[in-house]
Order: sequence, then structure tokens, then C-alpha cells
Amino acid sequence: MTDRMRLTLKDVAAAAAVSEMTVSRVLSGRGTVSVRTRERVQAVVDEMGYVRNRLAGSLASARSDQVAVVIPSLVNAIFDEVVDGIAAELHGAGYNPVVGISDYDEAREEALVRSMMAWRPAGIILPAIGHTARTRAMLRAGGLPIVEIMNVARPAIDMSVGLHQGQVGMALGQHLLARRYRRIGWVGLDPRDLSALARFDGLQKTIAEGGGVLFSPEARTHLPITFQGGRDELADLMARHPVMDAVVFANDTAAAGGMMHCISADLKVPDDIALAGFGGLSSGQALPKRLTTVHAPRRDIGQVAARSILRRIDGDRPRMIQDLGFDIVIGEST
Amino acid sequence: MTDRMRLTLKDVAAAAAVSEMTVSRVLSGRGTVSVRTRERVQAVVDEMGYVRNRLAGSLASARSDQVAVVIPSLVNAIFDEVVDGIAAELHGAGYNPVVGISDYDEAREEALVRSMMAWRPAGIILPAIGHTARTRAMLRAGGLPIVEIMNVARPAIDMSVGLHQGQVGMALGQHLLARRYRRIGWVGLDPRDLSALARFDGLQKTIAEGGGVLFSPEARTHLPITFQGGRDELADLMARHPVMDAVVFANDTAAAGGMMHCISADLKVPDDIALAGFGGLSSGQALPKRLTTVHAPRRDIGQVAARSILRRIDGDRPRMIQDLGFDIVIGEST
Repeated sequence: MTDRMRLTLKDVAAAAAVSEMTVSRVLSGRGTVSVRTRERVQAVVDEMGYVRNRLAGSLASARSDQVAVVIPSLVNAIFDEVVDGIAAELHGAGYNPVVGISDYDEAREEALVRSMMAWRPAGIILPAIGHTARTRAMLRAGGLPIVEIMNVARPAIDMSVGLHQGQVGMALGQHLLARRYRRIGWVGLDPRDLSALARFDGLQKTIAEGGGVLFSPEARTHLPITFQGGRDELADLMARHPVMDAVVFANDTAAAGGMMHCISADLKVPDDIALAGFGGLSSGQALPKRLTTVHAPRRDIGQVAARSILRRIDGDRPRMIQDLGFDIVIGEST
Repeated sequence: MTDRMRLTLKDVAAAAAVSEMTVSRVLSGRGTVSVRTRERVQAVVDEMGYVRNRLAGSLASARSDQVAVVIPSLVNAIFDEVVDGIAAELHGAGYNPVVGISDYDEAREEALVRSMMAWRPAGIILPAIGHTARTRAMLRAGGLPIVEIMNVARPAIDMSVGLHQGQVGMALGQHLLARRYRRIGWVGLDPRDLSALARFDGLQKTIAEGGGVLFSPEARTHLPITFQGGRDELADLMARHPVMDAVVFANDTAAAGGMMHCISADLKVPDDIALAGFGGLSSGQALPKRLTTVHAPRRDIGQVAARSILRRIDGDRPRMIQDLGFDIVIGEST
């Protein structure tokens, strides 16, 4: 294994005792080869582990069986089910997702998109917001089906599947006002997480209109806000604003960490302090007090995004903007 | 945006008022072009969003700037930091990781490896165990640097970076025996998660030798075991084995869910029941009782794996087996 030479078509042809042209025909499924020969060649290919170099074929067809998916973070559990939905839909059609991670960094996303597009994927799925002008230009010029996800962006670069993050903030605000919470905190704010910022803006507007006040954290969160981060930042926010009656977290994982702070500090949820999250992750529902949260249709977003790529490949024209909506899930924490 | 045509070299040449050859020279960095022309062409390329088709170049050089990474699951938080470590190391060298997810499914991994290898990545990083014979054959025949991670596999297909999962189970067993726990449960066992199985086997052997007994769950876990799963399965295991003094979980996330069950059922940790996890995730340390766990050097594994690929590309020969070890982290839960 120290000298690793790449196996060639010639090696396979020699092992199967046929011509290279015959091996090529078997692999491409084009041209006439007898069933017996085809089976023998395929057995040798499998045994030797030969993988056809797709690059030559791609030059002609400019089509790969891979769909490039950009997500901002592996740590933010919001994207797990989105990618699951994408994978389930693509696998059924013989495509594979390959995932790149931007770390909520526009420059890194640009490098990633450039690298992935150079390989002519069958399509690209990426978050709706946070692109550089150059990323936008590459995507517009690429001639590939592109789906922006999570936020319904207007105008979309090509297609868009998600929900209105600002409306999520407003709906959460209305729920909290209806429960008579007025002094409300927010945990997990970073200028790079534009979806959370849109929710924050919607919440702030609604709370202000309802005569309440929204306390924001110092903008020093390291994205994404985690279980540990939710615990630590809630402690910090409560130290700075001792009189709060509810706290909204950027995601359910952070809210679960916040509940750990309440348990350790012997604060009763929701009587001493109410907690709400975002995402509708199962983890929020396994807490000692079921979390009030917003159910985002994560798996559906992934599936609809992948299906939109597949339909475009088939020459169909799916709707450009697909708003899948959301639900407020009222738990025991508000 | 309804008719999406791919931008060509010709379009860029026309917009920059130069020949296609000149554009090609600017993009490849080969051949003579005046500084002024180079700058003008580059500005047009950026503005128009043109991405060079790398396939033609790849035929000659058989080298991409992408490293293929296969992970079994996005949901298992163990892999977040591994991928982070890989990305950090690769980005510094101008490479990008692209991630495929096998869902702990050997057939899916085989399809994924075939699809990724067809694009001639600069290297492949994948879990050490759970490959089909055909996957192994493809990897051996591919002539690419390959690193198997998480378990130190002997013999490695090429290189291997990780830890001894069986030794982890033994060390956990010794810790529990030393604390005088004898009736021990296990939560989160699935025949597909071969790393967890290796830990289970090591634990079982050690507990049996120490005169204790290990209760295993019915093998019906849906992988990966989650926060919610840890909570539900602990409840289930305790119903079937009412007299247990400690429980080991397949990962920290599941153990955190288990602690939620204990809080809800008013069980004192560790007096009524001790809990231990695996991974050393920060979430385990943010629980009301800090979790006893095993710190796997996840980020280091990713970095060393990526560095091994880069060194091989540079013509160097890193050690084939790199065992990075682990630490038992004693918290407040045992």
C-alpha cells in the first residue's frame, strides 16, 4: 500500500481478457456486448474496484450525479433534517448530495461555491441569504438549477424554498404578549446569522408595539449558539437584566441549555421565567418541561428543494418561491 | 432567470474584448498576458461570475481541490468537530472538504464512494469500519490517499487515525467497578454502529471479569441515538431492569437525554443511578450534573487525518496508524 497506483481501464481489460473498448461499452451501457461477456467484465470491475473516470464523460454531458449542498454549520442541528430530506429525495432518483460547510462566512461560501461549481454538479442548494456579490454572479451565470433554502428570498437567484423568518419572530411575540410577558430577553444573536436576525427584528417590532421591551445580548456569540452557550448566555443575560419574565433563544438546543441553567439555579419554568426556542427539534420535547418553540418544516424544505432540482433537470419548471410556513408549538415552558 | 444558459469562455472574451485564448491564459495563470489586460479580464470574470470548467484540466492532472469526507451521520454530534478539524486544516492549504453521509449503511457508503471517486478527489477520509468488499476494492484500486478515522483499524486500507474503541469500553468498565457499581445498563446499541459495539464489547468483558453484570437494550435503536432516544430508552431499560446502579450511553447526547428522564422521574444522579456517556461533548458538561464521559480527540482526529492527506500529496509518507488515544473525564454523574 505504500506505492498506490491508480487502476486503469487497461488493467481491467487485461484481467477480463477483453479489449478496452469492450470494458468501456460495459461501463457506459452503450454498444453491443454479449450477456456472458458483460457479466464477466462487471464481475472483474467489482472485484478489482475499478471506478470509471467520469471527467471525460462530463465534458460532453456537463452533468454529474452529485448535487452540491452548502450549509452554514454542522453544529446547528436545524440543518440535520434538511440534509436528510435532500438525501432521501435525491437517492431515490440516483443522485447524491455532497455537503460543504460555510461556517456562516460569506468569503468561505464563495470559495466553496467556486470549488463545487467547477465540477458541474447537477444543481446547488444553499442558504437563501449571506452571499457575496461574486457568489451571486457565479450562481446566476452557472446555468444550473439553484435552490435557496430556509428563508423565502425575494427575488430568488433561481428558486427558493423555506419560510418567512421575520413572521416567525412576530408570531412568537404575539404568543408571549398573549401570555402577558412584557420584559423579554433574547439569547444567541450574531450579525452573521441573518435568519436569527430576521426573527429578532420581527420579535422586537411586535413586542414594542405591544408595549413590552426586548433585551438583546451583547453581540459576542460564537456561532452557532450551543447547549453550553445557551446555558452560559442565559446566566449572563439574567445577571444584566434581573427583571425578565421570558427569554427567546435563537434555537432549541440553546433553549435546552437555558433550561439547564434554570434547573441548576432553582428557577421554576415558566413561573419564574418562561423559555421559547426555534426549530421544533425533538430535543426540546424531551426536556423536563416541554419547550415552546417554532416548528420549521426542515425535512420538507430539504425534500422540496431536492425535488425542485430534479424537476428542473427533467425540463419542468417548479414554482420559483415555495413558502412552506411554520407552526408555533406551545409546550410547558411558556 | 427562467432560461438559464451557462456562461462560456466565449462570453467572457467578448465582454472583455479579448480573445478566448487570452481569457484562458488569465484563468490558468500560464502564458504571457500584460498586467493591464490580466486585471481587466479578471474584473470581467468576477463581475460576470464565470467559473472555469475544471474537468478538462483534471483529465490531465487528475487532481481536484476537494477532499471527499464520508461520515455516517449528521445527527451524531461526534462528527461535527471531526469535520471542523478537517476543514480547518484543508482550508489552510487551499483544499475544501465535501461531505457525504452514509447513514450507517454499507450499501449507501459504497454508492457514495463510487460517486465521489469518479471525480478524482485529492483524497478520501471515511470511518474505519463498516465497508463492503467492493468499497474496499475501490479504495485500494483508486490510487488516492485514504484515511480511515475514529477507530485505529489494523490493517488499514491506507492510513488510519483514531483511537481504540474497545479500550474505551474497558476503561469505562474499570472506572465503574472502582466506584463499586456492579449492575450496569447500556443504552443505544445497534449492530450498524460498529464503534459503539466495540465499546460495548470492551465494557461487557471488563464488567464480567469484575463480577458485575451488563444489561443491554433490545437491539431496536434507530441510529443515531439522540437526546429524545436517550430519555425514552433509559425509561424503558429501567422498567425492564429495576435494579441497576449505573448506565452507560452510546454517546453524550443520549446520556443528556437520560439525565432528563432522571430529573423528571425524581431520581438522584448519581445516588439513585449513575450515568456515563461517550464523546466529551460540551453539552454533557452543561448538564445540572456534569457528565462522566470519555473525551475522544475529535478535532485532532480531523486535523491529523487532513494533514496526512496533504503530506501524502506533497510526496511525504505519514505513519500508517496514528492512535490519538482518549481520556476518561470524571464528572458529577458517577
